[in-house]
Amino acid sequence: MYTTETHIRVRYGETDQMQYVYYGNYAMYYEVARVESLRQLGLTYKELEAMGIIMPVLENHSEFLSPAVYDELLRIVVTIPEKPSVRIQFLYEIYNEQAKLIHRGKTLLAFVNQKTGRPCRPPEAFQLVLAPYF
Amino acid sequence: MYTTETHIRVRYGETDQMQYVYYGNYAMYYEVARVESLRQLGLTYKELEAMGIIMPVLENHSEFLSPAVYDELLRIVVTIPEKPSVRIQFLYEIYNEQAKLIHRGKTLLAFVNQKTGRPCRPPEAFQLVLAPYF
Amino acid sequence: MYTTETHIRVRYGETDQMQYVYYGNYAMYYEVARVESLRQLGLTYKELEAMGIIMPVLENHSEFLSPAVYDELLRIVVTIPEKPSVRIQFLYEIYNEQAKLIHRGKTLLAFVNQKTGRPCRPPEAFQLVLAPYF
Amino acid sequence: MYTTETHIRVRYGETDQMQYVYYGNYAMYYEVARVESLRQLGLTYKELEAMGIIMPVLENHSEFLSPAVYDELLRIVVTIPEKPSVRIQFLYEIYNEQAKLIHRGKTLLAFVNQKTGRPCRPPEAFQLVLAPYF
Repeated sequence: MYTTETHIRVRYGETDQMQYVYYGNYAMYYEVARVESLRQLGLTYKELEAMGIIMPVLENHSEFLSPAVYDELLRIVVTIPEKPSVRIQFLYEIYNEQAKLIHRGKTLLAFVNQKTGRPCRPPEAFQLVLAPYF
Repeated sequence: MYTTETHIRVRYGETDQMQYVYYGNYAMYYEVARVESLRQLGLTYKELEAMGIIMPVLENHSEFLSPAVYDELLRIVVTIPEKPSVRIQFLYEIYNEQAKLIHRGKTLLAFVNQKTGRPCRPPEAFQLVLAPYF
Repeated sequence: MYTTETHIRVRYGETDQMQYVYYGNYAMYYEVARVESLRQLGLTYKELEAMGIIMPVLENHSEFLSPAVYDELLRIVVTIPEKPSVRIQFLYEIYNEQAKLIHRGKTLLAFVNQKTGRPCRPPEAFQLVLAPYF
Repeated sequence: MYTTETHIRVRYGETDQMQYVYYGNYAMYYEVARVESLRQLGLTYKELEAMGIIMPVLENHSEFLSPAVYDELLRIVVTIPEKPSVRIQFLYEIYNEQAKLIHRGKTLLAFVNQKTGRPCRPPEAFQLVLAPYF
């Protein structure tokens, strides 16, 4: 299991007239959090794309427990629960400034060879940095 | 069961550098589609809010089967599968211009009294227009 | 001069907690409106990109006269005031449902050869459809 | 004159299929940068809203000199060039990781009393923290 955390401050444009973060913006919070979790491993998603690998999202699941509000500094805990194969799962827990769990998410992504468009194994470099955690 | 459909054209700003619609933008497509499905019932979400009812999203589930691309006119089929109580479920199927099913979604929303912040039954007017379908 | 119009309905996710359309979302309204204005000429921006031409924005100017609100059907009048050279200007006027002018915008875009990254003249096909208006 | 700076990392969802940051996303970068510039003064925009003041944008001007790309850590220099009255101007300069100036922006905002909807002077607290710079 690999777990890490990231902080994201809610932008004004991410709220809606219900005075909460618009539900559609959580997916981008997930993206930021999982990209930072890879960066902390010493590997960036940008580098993966430079190697010819893209990681499209196959599934996304979200539970909205409590609203997030403007200007809050959210804490997002990201977990890769299992050793990735041609797919990789990420779990997200979002906590507000009062340390209350307000959101849970889960995404399934594929490793895809950009040229062939076909699923592939994660690149060697990626397997290497993740190995100690599984 | 109540089923209706809406068309949405993919905007340039909704794509990402993978050349597909960014995965986080589907939630807004759902929103447009469910708002239009209510409008076709003769009731708007705007009117619901004017009655003091807000409908926060509790859960969101998405399956990305194939990518959507820029400028495509997507067809979104929205279904309310069950008679709503204090919660209401919406199902979404998105078809591309080749009539291929490319995406499936599901959201669970609550009816909430804006003043008290507490769950409530859908307003009479809403129950009335939906009644014939269940 | 070439003038055309498009209608856009305000999405919930485009509002912010001020209860208005977030100021950053007007640029996407411009994009939708200018793409539709080209489509009405019988040419799509998608086709331009397929010909190897991209049209990056060089300048954007916006005046927010009155707020736009949720669910309004905005009318956007788009004008190409001058015959385009390697650059093309678009003007936008946005009217709300009460036919009040609420917003004015102006964008300057370039025609760029995607391969070379260099400015270029608009493709023949584009010049041809626009010719009658100048 | 009051000048400060903020860093923003480009999110994947902020790019478009041209492989650049979508032009409509700069307005949100401005928002983040000016909110942080206020925070560094010891005052938050959130607090201003809590005092009953909202700051709608009246004008927005952008010059796109060079594209910003995915995952870049942009440096945004924000300047309040003049002592604010019922209006306040912000200037933005965005630099990429190679320290190249890639974007220039300017926004004019109003101070508005949320209850009356009328323009007003900035609150005392705001004038106080800014005073040393003008």
